[in-house]
Amino acid sequence: MTPMAEWRPRHFSWELSGRVAAIRLDNPSRKNPLTFDSYRELRDTFRALADSADVDVVVFGSNGGNFCSGGDVHDIIGPLIGRPMKDLLAFTRLTGDLVKAMLTCGKPVIAAVDGVAVGAGAIIAMAADLRLATPQAKCAFLFTRVGLAGCDMGACAMLPRIIGQGRAADLLYTGRTMSAEEGHAWGFWNALHPAERLEEEAQALARRLASGPTFAHSMTKTQLSQEWSMGLMEAIESEAQAQAICMQTRDFERAYRAFVAKDRPVFEGN
Amino acid sequence: MTPMAEWRPRHFSWELSGRVAAIRLDNPSRKNPLTFDSYRELRDTFRALADSADVDVVVFGSNGGNFCSGGDVHDIIGPLIGRPMKDLLAFTRLTGDLVKAMLTCGKPVIAAVDGVAVGAGAIIAMAADLRLATPQAKCAFLFTRVGLAGCDMGACAMLPRIIGQGRAADLLYTGRTMSAEEGHAWGFWNALHPAERLEEEAQALARRLASGPTFAHSMTKTQLSQEWSMGLMEAIESEAQAQAICMQTRDFERAYRAFVAKDRPVFEGN
Amino acid sequence: MTPMAEWRPRHFSWELSGRVAAIRLDNPSRKNPLTFDSYRELRDTFRALADSADVDVVVFGSNGGNFCSGGDVHDIIGPLIGRPMKDLLAFTRLTGDLVKAMLTCGKPVIAAVDGVAVGAGAIIAMAADLRLATPQAKCAFLFTRVGLAGCDMGACAMLPRIIGQGRAADLLYTGRTMSAEEGHAWGFWNALHPAERLEEEAQALARRLASGPTFAHSMTKTQLSQEWSMGLMEAIESEAQAQAICMQTRDFERAYRAFVAKDRPVFEGN
Repeated sequence: MTPMAEWRPRHFSWELSGRVAAIRLDNPSRKNPLTFDSYRELRDTFRALADSADVDVVVFGSNGGNFCSGGDVHDIIGPLIGRPMKDLLAFTRLTGDLVKAMLTCGKPVIAAVDGVAVGAGAIIAMAADLRLATPQAKCAFLFTRVGLAGCDMGACAMLPRIIGQGRAADLLYTGRTMSAEEGHAWGFWNALHPAERLEEEAQALARRLASGPTFAHSMTKTQLSQEWSMGLMEAIESEAQAQAICMQTRDFERAYRAFVAKDRPVFEGN
Repeated sequence: MTPMAEWRPRHFSWELSGRVAAIRLDNPSRKNPLTFDSYRELRDTFRALADSADVDVVVFGSNGGNFCSGGDVHDIIGPLIGRPMKDLLAFTRLTGDLVKAMLTCGKPVIAAVDGVAVGAGAIIAMAADLRLATPQAKCAFLFTRVGLAGCDMGACAMLPRIIGQGRAADLLYTGRTMSAEEGHAWGFWNALHPAERLEEEAQALARRLASGPTFAHSMTKTQLSQEWSMGLMEAIESEAQAQAICMQTRDFERAYRAFVAKDRPVFEGN
Repeated sequence: MTPMAEWRPRHFSWELSGRVAAIRLDNPSRKNPLTFDSYRELRDTFRALADSADVDVVVFGSNGGNFCSGGDVHDIIGPLIGRPMKDLLAFTRLTGDLVKAMLTCGKPVIAAVDGVAVGAGAIIAMAADLRLATPQAKCAFLFTRVGLAGCDMGACAMLPRIIGQGRAADLLYTGRTMSAEEGHAWGFWNALHPAERLEEEAQALARRLASGPTFAHSMTKTQLSQEWSMGLMEAIESEAQAQAICMQTRDFERAYRAFVAKDRPVFEGN
């Protein structure tokens, strides 16, 4: 078990409040770009979360009016130019590992996006479970604008299932900005909130999920990934097994007892 | 062959009109909860439908202003508390078998939802092929509120493909109610109708589908499930085979003859 | 390599302007039906495009106010009636091969749809990467009206991922017309434009994509198909490999140099 209360990342801000962790990139003057170091540390953080017992929900927030401007041009793009395939693949696998770690950390991740969320920043939002944004959110899968393909960190698989294949193709081929209104209408953003309330709305949602049943939430998260490419019949059997496991938790009993007592259940995550 | 005209279920209402069957749960004072008995009998009914020759379309309707309030707290939830895994898994498999039976019954299923459709009630609506609702429809995948996970009866596989991955995650993690307007805007409900017209609209749609070509409809239903996790190239070959089969039906010829005669085709389901 | 500048199809119109090819069916008085000959030649054209070096984007346009009225009743439907299975399957495979060829041609395909796009015409629009339409666009997967199933040329696989499973089921079972407004709201059409501007908007979008990075666009197209039924983890690794390949292109370096020089990159497709 990794106690996340003692987690001290060096390349982004980390706060633990109750059982809700808040991550925030911390280079707001440059709209929070990612660096090799922050990529690695983010990956390691989500991997540690998979093995932690003191965090139930993660909020990936904005800082200084922006979420994340993607891979830093000077720290990442420049150094990659002309590198041998081995190094290039090591880098793209590192970025993919961040998404894999987010998907398998076992805790719901909420992205709270103000301003710019582009390139890998758009991907981090996409890889979260739930996405809140402000009317100023500007999200662009702009890989094409730096000479690259739309297939970055899982975007060709995940974005079509969130907003539909046709809209995803538009964003991935053109690299254009998806406005906050489009993103909300298309189901990318779960809700829009004014910038001054984004933080508190994300925290309120996080606390709601952290109030449980957290073991069950973890199972929901597992199955949402796990069933991605299963046949329908296999998915249904897989859920029969997963839900039967949840029926052996005491939280299931707690909910029933509370219902009978006309009370609100207090879940304990076991 | 099972003649459904002689079908006499004991735990829900069953009517056959022409070749359209209508199912309706019949405990309206408690908003039509499911019991162990009705689960089993519903599963058996859809299994029998797969083998029947006198029904072409099924309408799963509402009763007394509500569709279905899910698994009965006293009949189902209570008795499951503290049971050994074998029994829990037997139950979750029974619920999954209902969805499997709906998907493989070979007939289009239309859900006509007024009022409450929650828990397993929301799942039954989700597992239908087409979904009509009233502006009063309240649909909630509320498993989380009873201490369970969102992965129930195939929801983590099916709901994302109907309304998108992000919206599905919201509903499955929070258990919140999807309003009729949301459900319509998101593609969960195919159409909204006033409560006093829901019944007739569902019947009209059912009759339209029952007017054929019913063999072809059955093939459409098969392929919508069958191709769920196929690669694109395999799906296209699978449809080439399926459609070639349909081209050997006399209904295909009937449509052509009617077209040439500037007439409406009368399909016979063969 | 097939030089598409010398391509001379006999059964539809073909124009090459810069590196953008424009296809247009040319029987406008009958709303541009498909024939056995045009099916074969379209398939061969998209197969040739996969092996060509002088085309980067394809626009499949409308002609005389309509896109395509589907398989010709007299040329195709009539002759298919009563044929042995071998011939029927040869035909449905030919139609599926057209979609496969569109998906694997390696170039983004833009459908520009005015008026009627029904039956196989709706499928061609669906199989394009991006779809523009006019407010007069009438799209119907009307196979059911000619006695056939909705599973035609990949529709049961592709349409649900574009507009959602429930809306797709509605269109495929009933064969009803999807209005331009519905299609836009549902993400089938990427944008609506007045009929008099459809052509220029499609060409502008095509030129934008043709300005590159075209090697990367080709990789985006490959991955959008390739990852269709992959697991999430496999899709992410697949994109790590695909993007690492793109990072070895000179277009990636060109974008970086242009950025540093505060200039616009000029991509060359290598």
